[in-house]
Formats: sequence, C-alpha cells, structure tokens
Amino acid sequence: MPDDPVDVTSVTLEAKAALGSGQSFWRTKAVGGLPAVVLTDGPHGVRAQADAADNFGVAGSAPATCFPPAAGLAQSWDRGLVERVGAALADEARSLGVNVLLGPGVNIKRDPRCGRNFEYLSEDPILSGMLGASWVNGLQGGGVGASVKHLAANNAESDRMRSDSRVEPRALREIYLKSFERVVTESQPWTVMCSYNKINGVYASENRWLLTDVLRHQWGFTGAVVSDWGAVNDRVAAMAAGLDLAMPGGDPSLDDEVIAAVAAGDLDEATVDETAGRVIGLLRRAADNSGPVEAVDLDAHHALAREAASRSVALLKNAGGVLPLAPDRRLAVIGRFATEPHYQGGGSSRVNAARVDIPLDEIRSRTAADVTCTAGFGAEGDPAHARADAVAAARAADVAVVFLGLSDLDESEGYDRDDIDLPEEQLHLLAAVAEVQPHTVAVLSHGGVVRLDDVDRRAAAVLDGGLLGQGGGAAVADVLFGVVNPSGRLAETVPVRLEDVPSFLNFPGEHSHVLYGEGIHVGYRWYDARAFEVTYPFGHGLSYTTFGYGSVEARTEDGAIRVALPVSNTGPRDGREVVQVYVSKAASDVQRPPQELKGFQVVDLPRGSTSMVVIRIALEDLAYWDDRVDDWVLEGGDYTIRVGSSSRDIRCTTDVRLEGDGPRIALSENSTIAEVLAHPVAGPLFTAMARQAMPAMPDALSSDGELVKMVGSIPLHRIRRFAGGIGQTAIDRLLQQANQPLDGQQ
Amino acid sequence: MPDDPVDVTSVTLEAKAALGSGQSFWRTKAVGGLPAVVLTDGPHGVRAQADAADNFGVAGSAPATCFPPAAGLAQSWDRGLVERVGAALADEARSLGVNVLLGPGVNIKRDPRCGRNFEYLSEDPILSGMLGASWVNGLQGGGVGASVKHLAANNAESDRMRSDSRVEPRALREIYLKSFERVVTESQPWTVMCSYNKINGVYASENRWLLTDVLRHQWGFTGAVVSDWGAVNDRVAAMAAGLDLAMPGGDPSLDDEVIAAVAAGDLDEATVDETAGRVIGLLRRAADNSGPVEAVDLDAHHALAREAASRSVALLKNAGGVLPLAPDRRLAVIGRFATEPHYQGGGSSRVNAARVDIPLDEIRSRTAADVTCTAGFGAEGDPAHARADAVAAARAADVAVVFLGLSDLDESEGYDRDDIDLPEEQLHLLAAVAEVQPHTVAVLSHGGVVRLDDVDRRAAAVLDGGLLGQGGGAAVADVLFGVVNPSGRLAETVPVRLEDVPSFLNFPGEHSHVLYGEGIHVGYRWYDARAFEVTYPFGHGLSYTTFGYGSVEARTEDGAIRVALPVSNTGPRDGREVVQVYVSKAASDVQRPPQELKGFQVVDLPRGSTSMVVIRIALEDLAYWDDRVDDWVLEGGDYTIRVGSSSRDIRCTTDVRLEGDGPRIALSENSTIAEVLAHPVAGPLFTAMARQAMPAMPDALSSDGELVKMVGSIPLHRIRRFAGGIGQTAIDRLLQQANQPLDGQQ
Repeated sequence: MPDDPVDVTSVTLEAKAALGSGQSFWRTKAVGGLPAVVLTDGPHGVRAQADAADNFGVAGSAPATCFPPAAGLAQSWDRGLVERVGAALADEARSLGVNVLLGPGVNIKRDPRCGRNFEYLSEDPILSGMLGASWVNGLQGGGVGASVKHLAANNAESDRMRSDSRVEPRALREIYLKSFERVVTESQPWTVMCSYNKINGVYASENRWLLTDVLRHQWGFTGAVVSDWGAVNDRVAAMAAGLDLAMPGGDPSLDDEVIAAVAAGDLDEATVDETAGRVIGLLRRAADNSGPVEAVDLDAHHALAREAASRSVALLKNAGGVLPLAPDRRLAVIGRFATEPHYQGGGSSRVNAARVDIPLDEIRSRTAADVTCTAGFGAEGDPAHARADAVAAARAADVAVVFLGLSDLDESEGYDRDDIDLPEEQLHLLAAVAEVQPHTVAVLSHGGVVRLDDVDRRAAAVLDGGLLGQGGGAAVADVLFGVVNPSGRLAETVPVRLEDVPSFLNFPGEHSHVLYGEGIHVGYRWYDARAFEVTYPFGHGLSYTTFGYGSVEARTEDGAIRVALPVSNTGPRDGREVVQVYVSKAASDVQRPPQELKGFQVVDLPRGSTSMVVIRIALEDLAYWDDRVDDWVLEGGDYTIRVGSSSRDIRCTTDVRLEGDGPRIALSENSTIAEVLAHPVAGPLFTAMARQAMPAMPDALSSDGELVKMVGSIPLHRIRRFAGGIGQTAIDRLLQQANQPLDGQQ
Repeated sequence: MPDDPVDVTSVTLEAKAALGSGQSFWRTKAVGGLPAVVLTDGPHGVRAQADAADNFGVAGSAPATCFPPAAGLAQSWDRGLVERVGAALADEARSLGVNVLLGPGVNIKRDPRCGRNFEYLSEDPILSGMLGASWVNGLQGGGVGASVKHLAANNAESDRMRSDSRVEPRALREIYLKSFERVVTESQPWTVMCSYNKINGVYASENRWLLTDVLRHQWGFTGAVVSDWGAVNDRVAAMAAGLDLAMPGGDPSLDDEVIAAVAAGDLDEATVDETAGRVIGLLRRAADNSGPVEAVDLDAHHALAREAASRSVALLKNAGGVLPLAPDRRLAVIGRFATEPHYQGGGSSRVNAARVDIPLDEIRSRTAADVTCTAGFGAEGDPAHARADAVAAARAADVAVVFLGLSDLDESEGYDRDDIDLPEEQLHLLAAVAEVQPHTVAVLSHGGVVRLDDVDRRAAAVLDGGLLGQGGGAAVADVLFGVVNPSGRLAETVPVRLEDVPSFLNFPGEHSHVLYGEGIHVGYRWYDARAFEVTYPFGHGLSYTTFGYGSVEARTEDGAIRVALPVSNTGPRDGREVVQVYVSKAASDVQRPPQELKGFQVVDLPRGSTSMVVIRIALEDLAYWDDRVDDWVLEGGDYTIRVGSSSRDIRCTTDVRLEGDGPRIALSENSTIAEVLAHPVAGPLFTAMARQAMPAMPDALSSDGELVKMVGSIPLHRIRRFAGGIGQTAIDRLLQQANQPLDGQQ
C-alpha cells in the first residue's frame, strides 16, 4: 500500500487520459506507486485467463470453482447463501491475482429467449437487487471489487452493440434500473459496468443521464464506471458522460482522442481529472485490499458449491409422492446429461471448473439398489434405438430418472434463442418413458426458461435447477433421495407457451431498436394482469414437507412495513420454506400490477416447529415512479400485504394504511375542466364562472352527467376556443386562487 | 359562383389571418364574393344544428336520415353500398345548406374500450381505408366535401385533448396512417381534420411533419386541414405546421395572435398566404358545387338506410339452423332494445333521425304467428320479476329472440369504457331464457366490441349489427325471416376476454401519454401472432347458404397482383359472399404479422351459380415501412395469397413471387462483423484481414461456429477496441471496396 495517495492534479493530462483505458485486455494501468488492477470475468466463478494474450479464451483459464450460475443460484432466494458464495469467490479471485470480478449480472430477464439469461438472476427487480447486493457484500467483504452489470436495459444479445432499448421512464425506473439502484445503494460496489446497448437513443457508455445524473447524483455511487468490453463507441463522449475506464485496453492511440478533445476545448480537463480520480480511487481500493493471500481450500469451496446447488433445486411437481426416492427403488437413469452434466452457460462467464460432480455417480453412491443408465438421446446413430433402450430400462426399473435440458450450443452469451422448447427428441423420449413407467422423474438443466407443459403432463415429478455449477450432480442426487429437502423457488415464470410471453412480439427488436412495449408488466406482473395460465408461477417450488401459515400482521415502523406471521412445519420432515411477501394496491392514481414482490425470507423449520417470520418492507420500495414530477412517489391509502409460498399460492393477507407523499400537482392552464371541477377551491369558482359566461349551458357541468364527461377533458386554456365568454383574465384569477396555499399548509 | 377567383396576395394580412379561423361554431368566413362554408357533424347523418347559437346540441338538430354508424356499416364490407350512402348524405347535406360533412372517421380501432369506436370502421387499415375512400367518393360526387378524421393516432377518448400517442414509425405508417393515406390518395377529400392528441410529443394541430411533410408532400393532399373543434393549442404554431382552419370560430381576438407573430417575425407571411389560399380553395370548391338543391326523398333514403343496415348484420352463429325463422314459429321477443332500439352512439355524431324502425313492429309485420314481447331487463322494479316474465314467454314460444346491447350511457364520444362486458342483468336474462328455450336467438346492438363468449355459449343463433341506424329494426327482421340472407362480416375481432386485447395494459395510458406497445400487432394481427383463441375472428360472418371456393391463381399484372378464383353458391338460397384476401410472407427481413388483409370483394351469388372473383392487390400495399430508409420497401421473394371467408376460415392459398425494391443498405463503420462476413465482396476481404491482424484467432470467424455468433455483433469501428491490429485505414479501404457499384449496377 503506498504511503502517499496520488494527487490527481499533479498528474499530466496525458497520464490522466491514459488512466481512462486499460493497459491490456484484463488490466488497468498503474500510477504513482499504485499497482494496476486486474479485472476478470465472473460472475459464478473466476475466469482468469491462463495466457494473457489469449483474449478469446481459446486456451482456457485457470481452474476455479464453478458455483451455480445466477439462473440456478437465484432459485435459492437465500441472501445469506449468496453472500457466502460471494465471499468464496473473493478468496479465489485474490488467489489468482484478480482485484475485480465482473459481476453480478442484475439485468432483468425480460424475455426467456435472451441468450444471457443464465447470467441474470430474475424477472423481478426486488429479488435481483437483493440477491445481487448480497453477492457484492460477500465479494467485497473478501477484498475483491464487484462490477455490477450491465447498466442498463441490456436484455437481449441480438445486435447488442447497436440495439437501442426504448423504455418508458416508469418501466425503466421500476423494473430495469431498480435492481441496480438497490445494489448500488445497499452495497456500494467498487465498479459498475455499462452495457453495450443504447437506452432511449443514447449508448449506455455515452449516457450522462444514466452514468452521472442517476447513478452518481441520485443513487450516490462513488466507484468507477467501467465499460463492457468494447462498449465504448466514442471515447470522448463516454468520458464526458461519466465513464471512467474503457476496456479492454491495449491501444494507446485511443487515449489521444481525449487529449485532442481537451486541446480543442471539446472536453473539460476537469472531467478528465474526475474520471482519472475515480480510476485512482479504484486502484487505491484494490491496493488497500492487497493483503496476504491464503491458499484456497477448493474442497471447502466444492462443498459450498454443492450446498448452493442443493438449495437452488426447485421441485416443481411431485405427484403421488414419487420423491424422495426410497433406498430400495431400482432406478433407470436416462439421458446424456446424467453423465455429461450441463451446469454452466457459454460465453465470457465460462469457468474452467476445478471439479465436476457427475449425477449418475452421485446417484449410484447414494443407493444400494440397481441403477441402470442409458443415453436416451443425443447419441450417434438411430434416435429410435436409443429411445427403445431407455424405454426398456425404464420398464425394468421401479423409477425412471430422466435428465433433460438444453445443450451448450442451444444457449449462450452472444445470441438469443428463437424458441423456448426442449429439443423434440428429448420430449419424445420422455413421453415414451413415461408411457411405460408412471414413476418418472424429470431433472432439468437449462440456462433460460423452457416450455414445460409437456414435461409437466408426462412426468410424475419434476426437478429444475436451472444451471447448478460443478456441485449440481451431488445436489440433484441429494434432493432425489431426500438427503436435502428441496426449497428452491422459481425466480422466473414458466409460461405455457412462448406466445404468452410479454415481450413475445417485441424481442429482440429489428433494425437495431427494441420497444419495451409491455412497460412495467414484466414477468409475473404480465401473467397476473392478463390472467394467463402459466405452467409454473414465479416463486413456485415444493417441499417434501408441508408448511402452515398463521395469520399475518403488518404495521408501519421506522420507515418500513413490519410484516410478521407464524409459519409452521406441519409435515413429516425438517424443511425450509421461502416466505414471499407481495403487495398490491387496489385503488390507485396510476396503473398497478396486480401484485409485486416486496420482500421474502428463507426459514429453516424442523419438523413440528413454528417460527415467527418477520419481513421488513422499506416504504421506499412501495413508491412508484411518477413521470410528471420525475421522482418516486409513495401514494397514500390502503395497501394489501399478500404472504404466500409462491406468487400464485397466497396463504394470508392483511391491509395496511400508509400516509403518502404524493405529488401535489398544481392546477395550470393545461388542467382539464374535470380536474378543475374536482378541485375543492377551483371547482365552485369555475362552475359560477361558466354559468355567468354561458347562460345557455345547462347545469350538467356540475353533475356527473354525460355532458361533463364530454367536455371534462377540455384543458382550461382551450376554453376560449369554444366559449369566448371565459377570458384569459378570468382563468388567470381562477388559477391564482386555486393554487394559493391553504391555511396551515405550505 | 364568383367570376373572379380570389387572389390571395391582394388580401390584407388581417383578412388572411381571419380566414384561418371560423366565423362561428359551424361556419367559416366569407371572402371576395365567395360565400362562407358550413361544416357540420357527421359521419352517418347530417347533424345541422337547428339553433346556430346552441353549440352543445341541447336543442337538437334538423331531422335527417340516420344511416348505420361506421361500426355497423363497415360490416357490409361493401364499397359500392358505402359510396351510395355517401351520395345520399351529400343530398341531405346540400338540402340543409351544409358544404362539408365531418367524416369519415378512419381511425383504427386499437382497443375495444375506445368510446368513439362506433364512429370508426375497423381494426384493419385496408378495410378502413377502402371503405373510407368510397364514402368520400360518394359524398364528394354529390358536391359536398368530406373531412377525413381524426388525423392521427387518436384511438382513445380519455384525456384526448392532451394525451400523447407514442407510436413507433412502422406501426404509425402501416397501421395508423395507412387508412388516411388511402383515402387521401384515392379520393382527394376537400378537407382533413387533425385530431386533439399529440403524436410522439407534438400536437397533431402543430405537427408539421404530419400535416405538411406526410400529408401534403408525401401523399399529395391539396385540400385544407381543419382542426377538430378546439384542437388548436397554439394558433401560430398550428399555422406554421400546416393547419389551415381553426375551428370553432367566434373569437376574433385569436386571429390577432397570427398578425402579431408575423409582425414579430415569428411567422412567415408566406405561410399565412398559403393557409389562406387553401381556405379560399375550400370556399371555391364549395361555391363550385353550390348548384340548385333538390328536395331530399327521405323515404328513398330510409330504404337505403334499411338496405345498408341489412347488409351490415353479421350472423355470428346459427346452430341447428334455427335461422331463418319459419313463418309459423311463435316468437317471444325479449329485451328493451326490441322496442327502444339502440341504433347510434352518443356525442357529436348523434343524428336527429327522421324516422326509426322499431324491431318489434317489423317482426310482427313479417309473421302471422303469435309474437309476445317482454322487457326482460332495464325495467323499473324487480329485475327478477322482469326476467321471470321473459322466461315464461320464452317457454310458451317456439323461438325466443332476445335483444341485448349497450345503452347510450355505456358508450359515447368523450369517454372510454372500463370493460367490454354486456350488463350482467342481460347475461342473466339470456342464460335464464336459453335454459328453457333451446331456440334462442340473440340480437346485439352496441358501438364497441363486447365480450360474447357467454352469448355464444347460451344462444343458438347470434345476430350482430353493431349499430344499424334508423333502418336497423327492419333489417334485423328481414334477416331473422330470411328476407335478406345475411352477409355482414366482423370488421373487428371479438376476443374471448378483455385481458387478451393487444393494448389491454396500454390503454388509455396515464399522465397524458399512451405507449403503442403492441406496435404493428393490432387486432387480428395480434391474435394470430400470439395464437390466441378468439370468440369470433375478424372477417367472420355466416350465411343461410354455403359457398364453395375453387382453386386460386395469382400473378403480377400492371403493378398489382391479380388474384382470381371461382366462388360458387353451393347451398339452398341466393346469397352474398365476402371474399377476403390475406397475404403473408414467411421468409422476411422484418417481423411480419402472420397474415394481413390486402383485398376483398362482395359477390352476389344466386343459388347454384358460380362467379369468377378477381381481386387486385396493389404491390404498394404489400410494402413495409423501413425505418432505416424512412420509406416504403417492397421486399422481394415469395408471398402467400390466402383467400377465405374470414381471417380464420382460409379456403385456398397460392404463392406468388415478387421482385423487390428493397433498400440496399451500404456497409458502414457501424455494420457488424456478421454483416460484413455476409457481404459478397467484404466478407472474404475481412476474413483475410482478420487472419493477418490476429494470427491467434481461429478459423471460426469464417464458419457458423459459436465464436462467430459471439463476435458477429461487433460493429466494424469497434474492432479497434478489441484488436489494435485492424486499423482505421484498413477498415476505410474495406468499406470503399465493398460499396463501389458492381458492374452493371447503379
């Protein structure tokens, strides 16, 4: 650690400009005794390139623990677990000389076809934000910086470097920025990574509103903004917008653009000072955390990877109690993924896993009964033959466990899927197996959501872990045999059909732009609002035991709603419940989704026990974004607290009344007659004025009749167009009287 | 008619400015011997105010024929009939001293809740545009000007004077402007009326892009633009945008704003000259058509109103051939609308109908059998009692004919509906009646679409005329008894539920803006693309006979596709079929609805006869709007011609191959690697260049592998960010070589 902090003003313009870009693909420059910072791909494992010159990862990276990718881990809904994973990642990063791990990815899963969904947490901003914040807390607590990505509205891979995400302000704030806002305000990440795409016409990397007004001024971000690799379109514009570090580095000529812009007066040198200062701040943070490195215990990390995976498995269906498997059941394990697990996604996040549990081996190690294994699909040769083998094995066994999923090529960073179907060959296989074996369990691995109506119809039980990382094989085996009682919950709705998806017709856009036409109605907000059937709802996941919910109480306390209720384990086994709190507001000045997740808590409940679960919902999380005042508004009135085991399994509700801080929109010339009539002061004044000016006008204006409905939408200043009798002076006087403060009010 | 045309340059600025606003509520100013023009509400009848001072229509208007409002008339799909209605309207207008009738309304029915949908023709722009053009041709052929309204994107009544319709360019052009474009180019209306709302942030009345660039320069409109009554927000801005006549008039001080703006240099006097010139042009057109007026034959017009109504009735269901009614059937006529018909909507278009056919009377006049009548609902007193009476009557009869619908207060100009349900009392009544009487016929009257799944489930037969005007009672009776064989077709999809509607969550917007989030997928385009069930599809309507479709042939001919097929009446009665041509394009560079209506034809077919139906589809109607080049583009390749009896009853198809005029988008620095690799010249050059610059890069770039999918989205000019080896000079050279014209091409 250097004794003297670097004084940015003592550095030459050339040196400051140079700080704004990397030294090489993964490394910043060093300055004034502060060593360079190494940034490396994450998020679910450290991808430190073995060969620094191999930018495209052809030669592979250093071995590291592959924890469950976000699509899996998010299903734990477990902030503590996620934080522990973050801490373990920090240990590994430090041991590999990495200062900043590029993650977490808190983009909203807007459409199941997005190729990078496996790197993202949820369709819901509260779940994404809370889990993302825990991940950052764990990582940074271990002395390694996070890079929360990809800010913002980067929800498709297609044409990702040019595409313009056209999002209305309310959806942007309440859905797409919300998860970033939470991570920034709760966890102060060292860095934030800006995305490739444009937001409402402006590249994220050049978006001053986003990178400075919102991120720094409104959210209080004090770290450095890093570009996604290659996201800088115009280096000078990016710096002016608040981008501090353009990555990757390696081309010094790009810094000359900054120097030339300052010389030409197009860029304020103070801006270069600020960005250089923030890069120096990053270097200093890294240096402050560059203590001695302990050797990583990869066995302990593997155990954590297994634990995380086992907590991420969601039991979606369990008809007739086919699971957990009794130890004497003869098993037919079917499907290539049983021996070649699909446990992470493709692209920059791909980890060179230190060790991988093989599901078949793990299953065999947990039972003394007969376990056969057939590939079932994907083998060379005749698919019908492979299927026939599998069917024969299933028939000969007591239970068939069929591993289905997407392959590495089906989904990846860099491109989007065209559909959400499992391969047809696999669905045929499942149908054939289930026909001869009623005790058929489907085990799914995939990064993005797949259509499961066929699977749900065929299989007696369905286990879905998304992508589970290197410990997934053991985790699945543990859940199958009841060593672990499953508690994973879907972080994303499983729709019946792709055609039901909110963004179905607005994804991935065309001609380099995409309209976020569904607005705030993303994920379950859409399915609920449109009352669509879904195959499995958001938050869904079963257990081998049952839980009873007592009656819920809610009250305001210290700027939050305190929700409390007793939850009991009423079934035959120890278990873990994920208690979810959704909030709705029936009477509102603005459009509201039928319900929105606002809090959740994991609770471990030994068989027969009861716990009082207390969940606090910050009042600010109940605010909506009001585009008239460009600010959050907490609307006053009754809110319904809905507590349940999934978004469509609400167990108890209560109401709580809140004082609002709603905007007082003053009357103006643009206010309508209906708004004026509804105003306590202006209403009677206007009625009298109208009667005087237009004696022929009936009294209907002061009633709820058809006429007032017809003319109610006329703005005040247009009245002259219709009725010369009400002049500008009269309108001015009316507004003045209406808008003067009432006694006792400001 | 004045001998000397008025020379606008000889008029004072004051006089020119004055021409830009009305003299009174319904009248322009006169100038230079040209009499003032009277404009009056339409579209489906002449609403000439009895008292010129009574702007709000309290005292009523002169008696006139109430033809079927657009919601009914459009169901005829009959351009000839619509033109005859237009001609009759011209006669009535002239006889009442009216020069311009305010219609037709060709706004697209974006959402069934829009209160003014009854004044609009269809959810489809081709149907709206063709019927609208016929209406204008009929009207203007009779010497009365049309005012095509309301330009544009005025698809809700809520907050209509402030609301900003946010529509992407492609949806605006292909859906919302398309019907206006057709009417303007085919029929040259005397006037176009601008709407109240904003379009993408700019009031229609101040939207120079819309009123001048698009309307005049691109479409060639030569008439005058009139404001909707009160739509002018800023008189000077409106004039600068191309608005010619601000209505209503009556406040001379508003003209002073124009004079002051010219004096201040804020408005070019040439602009005032142009607008005044166009108003004078309107006055001259009116004067040129001010020949002697013949007395209107209201009996003949009533007959036409009946004919139009009978052609607009759609038979939506006819189980077991309950219709037509045999003359000996004892009938229970039920429902208040049988005696108090709902035949037009509320608001500015309300006609003081010269005569109104009462359905019950018309039914009684057509049968000698017993006809009872009960109110069924809506009566004073106990609804259960009214229902019991109706049930008893139904039980005692052979057939129950139940008149259901919306009331005058349920829907109107000026406000939107909250739901699309028929009143619950009516649905209870229908259920109770149908329970005792299997031969139950529902007859519906309503302006906006109503949910009909209950009605479809309960009633054996369903007749739906929308709103039928003053001859509706006779028309319904004629169809019930088979005097007329029904041929009406839905001009709007009947969805199963409101929640299925494309704009369900984006209507009517909030805080004075509405996002057109469904884009081009309006109406059946949405239901088809999402593969939603509907209760009755667009274009649906049954007949008392059956039609056979022969095989279709299609070929290009004179800038059009000539579609020809034989259609036969294969059933027991003379009948009329509406042959519909939908076009789809499977392989396309852009997103396409599964099918789009491109042509249609009504054909009368005596029993046993066959006609060759020929429908021409202009190639320009197959173009899509390309926002990259801001122009229409006809894409080359195979188009499928789908001919059917409704959008979901396609009888025959054929393919036709078109030469396209697709845009040749030159490669640029912003082209992606994938686009470069796909280019015949640039592809090989780039591959060679990349190999030289990055020897470590595998050959994957030239294949379809994962790597090219990953890096394919990188724009050329960003390559420097990744690989310094490919410099700007090399990229410039590549682009130059790629974009030079090939031999033999321009």
